[in-house]
Amino acid sequence: MFEAIFYMAVVAEAMTAALAAGRRAMDWFGVCMIACVTALGGGTARDLVLQHYPLAWVANPWLLPLVSAAALLAIPLAQLVARLRWTFLVLDALGLIAFTIIGCDIAIAAGQHPVIVIVSGMLTGCVGGVLRDVLCNDVPLLFSSELYATVSIVTGAVYLVGLRFGVEREAMVVVAFCIGFPFRVLALVFKWRMPKFVYDKGEWE
Amino acid sequence: MFEAIFYMAVVAEAMTAALAAGRRAMDWFGVCMIACVTALGGGTARDLVLQHYPLAWVANPWLLPLVSAAALLAIPLAQLVARLRWTFLVLDALGLIAFTIIGCDIAIAAGQHPVIVIVSGMLTGCVGGVLRDVLCNDVPLLFSSELYATVSIVTGAVYLVGLRFGVEREAMVVVAFCIGFPFRVLALVFKWRMPKFVYDKGEWE
Amino acid sequence: MFEAIFYMAVVAEAMTAALAAGRRAMDWFGVCMIACVTALGGGTARDLVLQHYPLAWVANPWLLPLVSAAALLAIPLAQLVARLRWTFLVLDALGLIAFTIIGCDIAIAAGQHPVIVIVSGMLTGCVGGVLRDVLCNDVPLLFSSELYATVSIVTGAVYLVGLRFGVEREAMVVVAFCIGFPFRVLALVFKWRMPKFVYDKGEWE
Repeated sequence: MFEAIFYMAVVAEAMTAALAAGRRAMDWFGVCMIACVTALGGGTARDLVLQHYPLAWVANPWLLPLVSAAALLAIPLAQLVARLRWTFLVLDALGLIAFTIIGCDIAIAAGQHPVIVIVSGMLTGCVGGVLRDVLCNDVPLLFSSELYATVSIVTGAVYLVGLRFGVEREAMVVVAFCIGFPFRVLALVFKWRMPKFVYDKGEWE
Repeated sequence: MFEAIFYMAVVAEAMTAALAAGRRAMDWFGVCMIACVTALGGGTARDLVLQHYPLAWVANPWLLPLVSAAALLAIPLAQLVARLRWTFLVLDALGLIAFTIIGCDIAIAAGQHPVIVIVSGMLTGCVGGVLRDVLCNDVPLLFSSELYATVSIVTGAVYLVGLRFGVEREAMVVVAFCIGFPFRVLALVFKWRMPKFVYDKGEWE
Repeated sequence: MFEAIFYMAVVAEAMTAALAAGRRAMDWFGVCMIACVTALGGGTARDLVLQHYPLAWVANPWLLPLVSAAALLAIPLAQLVARLRWTFLVLDALGLIAFTIIGCDIAIAAGQHPVIVIVSGMLTGCVGGVLRDVLCNDVPLLFSSELYATVSIVTGAVYLVGLRFGVEREAMVVVAFCIGFPFRVLALVFKWRMPKFVYDKGEWE
């Protein structure tokens, strides 16, 4: 079940990343690369930071062809993907929670400090989108859009606290989904955002 | 004393990074992320390059909340930070020297070649600002502004040569500050820059 | 012979990267940094991904001064470098094949899966240019230009299959050059590109 959500989310992220590549008129290779970076970049960042080798996609090398295939499939289906916007946002929200839990689990298994556990979950869920935006030459959406990293941080904190209080892992995974997923969906529906810091005095430094 | 300079510099970098985030109208989370990347990205790059695990901020996880708090504090104090421009530039100059020395020390302890020792100091002092500019979608200031990396390289070289000649580490730290810090401040005051390479013939490749 | 190609390619990449830096009016330090990132970034990415330490340029620290010297040499010779456009493209094509083979060899020696071997060759050959474009604030050329990564992937696949069938390494290196090099040159001459995915429906997500 958890694994099914993981794969659906990876495929969904690959397909929406393909649209981002298409907006930059990239070729098919570029589409695959943007999709791989978006879907697998968060886990890669986490693994580099925690020295957790082999990287997820090196240990499971068929992840790369899977993500690339999903991205290429999005090219003829672009209209459909765009029309199914909310389906993809929902899958992405499920993926955010799944990625967060995976990131927390890996940091916990490595005996990391609670702060690092939560950061590890957040990196896993969020860095892929940042790398996509950097490669597409945009300021990362993550830093100004509807609550996303916040959802990951809250979910990771709840998950970690539950485990610390001795709740079973399986139960806490369910709790994490029951809290994080509606949180993200509500943030999208009601456009919940963090307050912005707008500073427009001339450059300095 | 050295540690006090380190923390003041981290806080100062976090606060000025927050202004950079504010110029892109980022939200509070984005402000914290830009601050963390700016203040801790140089050390992270060095640690990845030298396989020096755990990363500084993974070993001292309260660095992340500290940097985030400093960045959030800069939001209400933005006017003040801008007015204290020179105070922050001075703190940043002290930080550049402190980061350079830390980077050199870590490479020396790992038995690296002198070239790598100096590069390690330079990466520690300079990469954070490059990552900040990449995430803010700018061409890195480091590559065209007043002498900064050069100060780090010169300071690292002096520090390393001193140690090789048998001078005590404490004495060389003082020497490094006495040379590097005024060098950077003078570069700012007199706008010392490296010669630029301006090439404006049409694209090729 | 192979090593000679490697060094010529590194020097050629450093010199053309210097022109890219010059187009952004970077200073001499920026020119050296862009050259180092372009010429050595691919191998660095591969080594981080495969935990192959020490990094190539940490193990051979004189690579950094060599690349920097080549980049600085390109400043007075900019006109010449631009006029020798095709010479540099040919050297770059040779370098692409050499880098691909090196990347494959390292992954094979680490006992990686065939998919990862080919990806390792592609990362070694292609990531440097992507990092250069990110630092120059461009959308990476690699994602929309004449066949480049494709050449690396095809070359890596041929090389790997040959080795698997028991052909000697020296012979396969020659075969890889005989296939990959004309492939890249023909792609440049006839402007072979991958089909593009152009998607211009408004933003979503």
